[in-house]
Amino acid sequence: MKALVWDETLKLDKNYPIPEVSDDEVLIKTTMAGICNTDYEITKGYMGYKGILGHEFVGVVVKTGKNADKSLVGKRVTGEINLACGNCSYCAKGLQRHCPNRKTLGIYKKDGCFCEYFTLPQKNVIPVSDAIDDITAVFTEPLAAAYEILEQLHIRPDHKVAILGDGKLGLCISLVFSALNIDYTHIGRHREKLEISKKLGAKVKLSDELEKDDIKNYDVVVEATGSSGGFETSVSLVKPRGTLVLKSTIAAKEGLNLASVVVDEITVLGSRCGQFRPILRLLEKGKIDVKPLVSAIYSVDEFEKAFFENEKKGTLKVLVKF
Amino acid sequence: MKALVWDETLKLDKNYPIPEVSDDEVLIKTTMAGICNTDYEITKGYMGYKGILGHEFVGVVVKTGKNADKSLVGKRVTGEINLACGNCSYCAKGLQRHCPNRKTLGIYKKDGCFCEYFTLPQKNVIPVSDAIDDITAVFTEPLAAAYEILEQLHIRPDHKVAILGDGKLGLCISLVFSALNIDYTHIGRHREKLEISKKLGAKVKLSDELEKDDIKNYDVVVEATGSSGGFETSVSLVKPRGTLVLKSTIAAKEGLNLASVVVDEITVLGSRCGQFRPILRLLEKGKIDVKPLVSAIYSVDEFEKAFFENEKKGTLKVLVKF
Repeated sequence: MKALVWDETLKLDKNYPIPEVSDDEVLIKTTMAGICNTDYEITKGYMGYKGILGHEFVGVVVKTGKNADKSLVGKRVTGEINLACGNCSYCAKGLQRHCPNRKTLGIYKKDGCFCEYFTLPQKNVIPVSDAIDDITAVFTEPLAAAYEILEQLHIRPDHKVAILGDGKLGLCISLVFSALNIDYTHIGRHREKLEISKKLGAKVKLSDELEKDDIKNYDVVVEATGSSGGFETSVSLVKPRGTLVLKSTIAAKEGLNLASVVVDEITVLGSRCGQFRPILRLLEKGKIDVKPLVSAIYSVDEFEKAFFENEKKGTLKVLVKF
Repeated sequence: MKALVWDETLKLDKNYPIPEVSDDEVLIKTTMAGICNTDYEITKGYMGYKGILGHEFVGVVVKTGKNADKSLVGKRVTGEINLACGNCSYCAKGLQRHCPNRKTLGIYKKDGCFCEYFTLPQKNVIPVSDAIDDITAVFTEPLAAAYEILEQLHIRPDHKVAILGDGKLGLCISLVFSALNIDYTHIGRHREKLEISKKLGAKVKLSDELEKDDIKNYDVVVEATGSSGGFETSVSLVKPRGTLVLKSTIAAKEGLNLASVVVDEITVLGSRCGQFRPILRLLEKGKIDVKPLVSAIYSVDEFEKAFFENEKKGTLKVLVKF
């Protein structure tokens, strides 16, 4: 089968073996996949991962293992990307995403979905309603990561919220916040990207138009810029006793000054992957239109080209059709 | 009057004028004061403050302004150190400590208590029960800062907690946690200081005895080392989805790596000054013995010497008697 493999170089392998399905797994035929900045980070050394890339997908179950539910065959599905042990205290609390024994699809110890066929444990697989088209379904994972903020934090209807950063991550958060009627201002560097949020009814502001009145003005600020400068701006926007949600590990790599976090008793909340079911409910109701975030759709044979397209400045989501 | 003044140099002025009492204030004759690391930080430039230092005290009200409660005269008191405006949204929520218009005793725009007489707004002043001796009363402010953690965070009876750092700050937190029956391990570099916590029934551990089992093992970790290395150790001890309480602005000044805060969805909670009444209830019941934390008591005429004593490695609380 065709598979986009990272092993010090990036290569579209056309003869990669179709994986075996173990007892508790299903085999999924990929319909469409999405390229994420994490995939790109892996090619820069993130997680030291080698293997088939990819964790955003929609596909169809074509085979089930001995213990897996046979009625899934033929169903359109997406799937949670963390493969948890099921036996630890985190799994017992429904926090499979924090299972210390987990593997992660296309990120850690588990081949990803940038290929024609891949496996997932049946418990990770979630059928996708016919009301959700393929393009929208591929956004389940990044939108779930945006929705994760709401699992961790009670954003009240009267809270003033800011999203800093207008890349894919910031825009996915904007889509979710808009659908949930949160009162937010989207702050970024690109007028054309902020236009997407503006059409959703959000207040928007260019970073260099921030004023004195914005300082310490927001109950909740979401850092989605991926830069250390973005972190410091975000801190400055948070009210004393407010919350800064940190969505990006890239921002977190650099040296940061936390003095005002202490003085203003700010809560900094790290936030990563989210659950799929809440966001699928929202998508099924047609409450989110992901189309403005799609920059390009490539065929599987152009996967390498698609991958490098994703690197280009200004590109939003690049999808690959199988 | 005698007053310890910081104005580029530190000087015990013996002819400083006794301050006027305005309508809403009381005049306090200082009985005893405590030296805090913040006082020392001010002489290194913190807050750009100049004036009489000091914010930890117990004293006696000797005069009241026109609108202040006359029955306070003759009462032993301590007092909240943030002088709030009373008119803003933070004051309305009882968060005078975050009033954007506040002055702070001996730290920002308001002469401190390292002098024979000083003023405070009557609303800041709290009578001290006879059950609390002077030495204990001087600890009200630093112990309130430790108790602040419990105002911000629900530490459950079954939570595993660690305090990192065995200086004054870490030991004050240990005293409060012990009094409130929290299940904690005190981690530090000094066996003799940790002995104080051990006598309280705490588990103690030298920093270089930390084991693999300590990693990601604590629901709540309190960073009280004042160093950036301490921050990174603290992060490594927190469970995924756990909380790191940041008590020290010194630690916060340096470059920090927040990547695992995002990956493990850790909450970093900045924490600073606390309310006085909860800790005074605890002190009145005799639940906290501060005596092991007292390194020396000087007379007011030796104030400069006392101040530099505080700088010495291994010194805990230095008090000054008026």
